[in-house]
Amino acid sequence: CHTDGDNAGVVPTDTQKNTVNAFARDGVGAPEDFLLRLARHFTEGFEQVSGGRWEAQRHAWQRIPVDGAPHDHAFVRSGTHTRTAMVLVEDGETHVLGGLRDCTVLKSTGSEFHGFPRDRYTTLAETDDRILATSITAWWRYGAADPDALDFDALHAAVTATILETFAQVHSLALQQTVFECGKAVLEAFDEVARSFERTYEEETGERVRVVQNALTERVYKQFVQTQGMGGTLPDLVQLGRVRLPYLAGAAAVTFHPMARPRNA
Amino acid sequence: CHTDGDNAGVVPTDTQKNTVNAFARDGVGAPEDFLLRLARHFTEGFEQVSGGRWEAQRHAWQRIPVDGAPHDHAFVRSGTHTRTAMVLVEDGETHVLGGLRDCTVLKSTGSEFHGFPRDRYTTLAETDDRILATSITAWWRYGAADPDALDFDALHAAVTATILETFAQVHSLALQQTVFECGKAVLEAFDEVARSFERTYEEETGERVRVVQNALTERVYKQFVQTQGMGGTLPDLVQLGRVRLPYLAGAAAVTFHPMARPRNA
Amino acid sequence: CHTDGDNAGVVPTDTQKNTVNAFARDGVGAPEDFLLRLARHFTEGFEQVSGGRWEAQRHAWQRIPVDGAPHDHAFVRSGTHTRTAMVLVEDGETHVLGGLRDCTVLKSTGSEFHGFPRDRYTTLAETDDRILATSITAWWRYGAADPDALDFDALHAAVTATILETFAQVHSLALQQTVFECGKAVLEAFDEVARSFERTYEEETGERVRVVQNALTERVYKQFVQTQGMGGTLPDLVQLGRVRLPYLAGAAAVTFHPMARPRNA
Amino acid sequence: CHTDGDNAGVVPTDTQKNTVNAFARDGVGAPEDFLLRLARHFTEGFEQVSGGRWEAQRHAWQRIPVDGAPHDHAFVRSGTHTRTAMVLVEDGETHVLGGLRDCTVLKSTGSEFHGFPRDRYTTLAETDDRILATSITAWWRYGAADPDALDFDALHAAVTATILETFAQVHSLALQQTVFECGKAVLEAFDEVARSFERTYEEETGERVRVVQNALTERVYKQFVQTQGMGGTLPDLVQLGRVRLPYLAGAAAVTFHPMARPRNA
Repeated sequence: CHTDGDNAGVVPTDTQKNTVNAFARDGVGAPEDFLLRLARHFTEGFEQVSGGRWEAQRHAWQRIPVDGAPHDHAFVRSGTHTRTAMVLVEDGETHVLGGLRDCTVLKSTGSEFHGFPRDRYTTLAETDDRILATSITAWWRYGAADPDALDFDALHAAVTATILETFAQVHSLALQQTVFECGKAVLEAFDEVARSFERTYEEETGERVRVVQNALTERVYKQFVQTQGMGGTLPDLVQLGRVRLPYLAGAAAVTFHPMARPRNA
Repeated sequence: CHTDGDNAGVVPTDTQKNTVNAFARDGVGAPEDFLLRLARHFTEGFEQVSGGRWEAQRHAWQRIPVDGAPHDHAFVRSGTHTRTAMVLVEDGETHVLGGLRDCTVLKSTGSEFHGFPRDRYTTLAETDDRILATSITAWWRYGAADPDALDFDALHAAVTATILETFAQVHSLALQQTVFECGKAVLEAFDEVARSFERTYEEETGERVRVVQNALTERVYKQFVQTQGMGGTLPDLVQLGRVRLPYLAGAAAVTFHPMARPRNA
Repeated sequence: CHTDGDNAGVVPTDTQKNTVNAFARDGVGAPEDFLLRLARHFTEGFEQVSGGRWEAQRHAWQRIPVDGAPHDHAFVRSGTHTRTAMVLVEDGETHVLGGLRDCTVLKSTGSEFHGFPRDRYTTLAETDDRILATSITAWWRYGAADPDALDFDALHAAVTATILETFAQVHSLALQQTVFECGKAVLEAFDEVARSFERTYEEETGERVRVVQNALTERVYKQFVQTQGMGGTLPDLVQLGRVRLPYLAGAAAVTFHPMARPRNA
Repeated sequence: CHTDGDNAGVVPTDTQKNTVNAFARDGVGAPEDFLLRLARHFTEGFEQVSGGRWEAQRHAWQRIPVDGAPHDHAFVRSGTHTRTAMVLVEDGETHVLGGLRDCTVLKSTGSEFHGFPRDRYTTLAETDDRILATSITAWWRYGAADPDALDFDALHAAVTATILETFAQVHSLALQQTVFECGKAVLEAFDEVARSFERTYEEETGERVRVVQNALTERVYKQFVQTQGMGGTLPDLVQLGRVRLPYLAGAAAVTFHPMARPRNA
């Protein structure tokens, strides 16, 4: 229809917006679940819609304390990050992604940067103790066969905690290494779940199943970096891994955006 | 010097920046105290500097929890608002202001808006139940004779809590009225301190003192609104009061910036 | 009404927005003229409205060239700056201000910065040739008794050209001095108009009139700087002059916002 | 090296920045040529660097007119858009992309939107005359075997003019159709160059060559949309085509970002 101006298949953005508002009125729940309901509405309700992408951001709110007790209907925004979610439907497959952004972290020590090559344009001094301040953006994909069975709130909290704990505990020799360790920690944390799933599956069904972790191919990695770049949002570093798991799987991308000039950036 | 290009009296911005960094290395403390130290350095250290304005923002950080315990040197930014501070020196007087911004609040009910005049351009429906979502910016001035004696962290927490509690508790008939009540609550809360001060002062000195609360004159209010407007940051509503108090005094300005379209804005 | 939640005097923002759109449909013209029409509508149409502030921005558009000719109804935004305008009504007086912002300028040479004082925190090197890149924001007030008689488009073009020409021609010894010269040039350019007005007035009426230029008092200057600062938009430098003129008068404030790091800022 | 914190292969961002500044001092020229020089420096100068992505933005500047003549060393930023450029090196291949962004366009008439499906959530009215205002972002890839032989400034001007002319001339039945026509016009304009190349090639070599235009496969299109989405910058519409040409080829992506609420968006 975009070739001839026939709009019979075009769901207007205004209708899309109204639909989101109407669905929200009936309750939102976990953002991933809300996006799944929207995705089903559009792909099942419109013959011409076979796929699409739905995104949400969730801000944390806390009840305003009044005389020490949380207020009934007054809230103030709080929290350490913005939670992001995405549902992608294509080729009959539904992908659910969780993520976070605007998560500003700082290590007041425990960060070094030295041993890098020097040429005639190098002025940066080497350091064995610097302040490391950055902002984390991360995305991961849930690989469950039945996304409706997942507790997205709990899973999101677990992944976020793993990333933050790893950032805190890794002695940083370079930002690249810190990022890699954060991504690895997420995948390893959920590897335990995979092993547990294999045991349970065999006990319950008598059949053996092997959950394997596959790294993203070089080819996919390049396409991610290349196309992200066109939007001007290429992260400084992307570490990708891929894992088939009952609960969490797929690409985990953790990226750090440098803050205004740490000591010896 | 700005008339002839003689820079003998110009402290370069680069020097100012270096000075801030050097002072910060020796410890920051409350932002108001830090700004007071900077103000003294510049007004006492440079013959040609008789006044000026110094501003700071403070973000809240919490230690990253690792295995349930706060980490020794890793932090994540958190909190409900950005704390702001300002020190103004002019005509030999030093003024200290505290404030907050980026404080996003929401009432899911308890907000009405009706009874407004209608003309041929009015399309807004009246409502007796709407969601009220907005972002608070506030400024207040401390009126103590000796600012070094103040506990700015405690005072800031008290004013912020008063604003949030009032926002939560006032049944809103209009945003203007909610703003007015927030400002009034701050001034009343600190009025109790004034009465207490009068009693203590008489007991200790035998002399009677009367602390009075003077509203800002219309003239000052207008100048504030007018000049603020030139910077494009005129708040929708400004409520100003002025009070001479031992601890807190001066102009309290609480402003709300409307969020993206609440129901029946 | 803000004290008790009675909205009988509150013109809702939604009505204000609708009014602006309805007036715009009837033609806009010069932004200053459009704001004057809006100001009259609100102050004359609502008993409770005795004053206010109205602001506008104008972007430049040019017709898209098609086969060398300007297209009939297709436009692309262009230009070197955003034109700003403001109308203030208070105490029965109407003030009209013109301005510009987002005007990025650069001198590839002809800029020095040296002779500034050095202390232990000074690291900036002196230079007798640096690139000067900055962004200009300027405001001026028209002092005509009858604003409807002014050709705001022509006046705005003349002031803007004067600022840019002065920036180009002044050999810069400091940003402060460049700013001062720009403001002075605007006031001098319109001083000629004042002398011309005096001669014409005497010829036509037989009476002598003297147009004088009064600098802004220190007190007004301070209030401008102080209150602007509360909105976080304090310009690095403000040069203010005041002049009673038939066409242009009042405060001329030209400010420069430094760009990302010129050589030896 | 990112797995173990060994930085022997890490070219610090600080060195990268210094290198860009040093190269710029020797002259910039067309941004695509400048990026090609940078790409060669890094891939040829560092054994561990086999590829990468380099991006540039070019703002238009004009000389400030003084007494009717352009000034020797004073400039003001102007123009209708920001020019973008990108060089990608991977697998031994070098790709050069040109683009533009921040190009705000408007049609005051000649735009309709009707015939779209209606459901219970549809409130948008159909219209046969609306104002269409939007912002264009576009990317295209140059397919020349020898990029150094291209006149990037001339090519960029030609593509930009084609996009703007098409936007002006197409009677819009939907934004999708307008975008499609803009992309098609660019590819057709350069198709003429391809036919001309075929003729010249045969005349000069005696061999026949056939330049064919291949649409981007569905697979590539999906990856572009999907990964762009992760950065939050997914354009509303993407039209992609691919063509092997002596001068211009590859993906042409023209996207429009809706402005604040046109009539009947």
